[in-house]
Amino acid sequence: MARRGPRTGDVDTRGDILEAARDAFAARGFHAATIRSIAAAADVDPALVMHYFGSKSQLFAASLDIPLPVEGVESIVLADGIDGAGRAIAATFFGIWEVPHRRAGLLAMLGGAFTNETAAAALREFITEAIIRRVAAHVDEPDAEQRLALVASHLVGIAIMRYVVGFEQLRDVDVEELIDLVSPRLQSYLTG
Amino acid sequence: MARRGPRTGDVDTRGDILEAARDAFAARGFHAATIRSIAAAADVDPALVMHYFGSKSQLFAASLDIPLPVEGVESIVLADGIDGAGRAIAATFFGIWEVPHRRAGLLAMLGGAFTNETAAAALREFITEAIIRRVAAHVDEPDAEQRLALVASHLVGIAIMRYVVGFEQLRDVDVEELIDLVSPRLQSYLTG
Repeated sequence: MARRGPRTGDVDTRGDILEAARDAFAARGFHAATIRSIAAAADVDPALVMHYFGSKSQLFAASLDIPLPVEGVESIVLADGIDGAGRAIAATFFGIWEVPHRRAGLLAMLGGAFTNETAAAALREFITEAIIRRVAAHVDEPDAEQRLALVASHLVGIAIMRYVVGFEQLRDVDVEELIDLVSPRLQSYLTG
Repeated sequence: MARRGPRTGDVDTRGDILEAARDAFAARGFHAATIRSIAAAADVDPALVMHYFGSKSQLFAASLDIPLPVEGVESIVLADGIDGAGRAIAATFFGIWEVPHRRAGLLAMLGGAFTNETAAAALREFITEAIIRRVAAHVDEPDAEQRLALVASHLVGIAIMRYVVGFEQLRDVDVEELIDLVSPRLQSYLTG
């Protein structure tokens, strides 16, 4: 059932911006692809991009259909305080990866990073700015960013072994069991 | 300086077998590529393949130029007992990955696994048979193989973040520092 009037126009504009953003991030990476250039490619005002998405990190996440709260990822990760952050990070990560179409987009980007430095840079810059730096600011260790990078590494490694390489011991296990096993090790990087 | 006589013949034969093995593993995976079919492709007797390489796992490792002791990987990993296994695993892993031509071969295989199920199967079957099952036999936990798979995941994830995605917090750090940070977390899967 087609709808008429400004609502339909809005939806198309948002879709046009997302398509321009996907192309720009893939071609130039996260830093080099500016909101201004994405707006120009979608033929809209840069202010409209900010109105819809709020920030470049939000736009990047939306282009992968990844939910990212406007208050920042730390609002989820630290909802139960730093002592619950290991489990919250694992639960958030698998909550995204267990959704097939989200997993497909993330695997395409991660696989692309093996042969395409721009894809690698986009992933690196987004994860560093939107996740690692923001959570590290709440971790009371001198090498907080490095510890968060190790947390991210462990989760990415499990994703590859579960969804790509297909190790039976990780592929055939319930995600809750995986979260129980992994969370204490992630936590030990944050408060250990 | 060219050498003459049977020695040179030996070296070429070994190289022919390795080339046939690389092709066979890439085309059919680790299980389906038999010693017999690899010997046939290299135009040698299967007994000669066993004479040179000892086992299919050894042949697979040699085809990637990865050192694998004939007594099995557990002879390195458990050299200091199970309490030193976390560190021994990390040191062995990075000892291989820090050698550029070995890293290149491993990254090609891992990147290939994203789009090629046979490459994924070869990697999965080799790591399961030659590493996870053999070390798990010495780990006193009911879910030992799963724990070893998580250890492998963490290391593979760090390799991807250090060598592919290029996170500065992992890319620019000395490998000894990385081993110090990671070893206690790997150990906690084995004896924790």
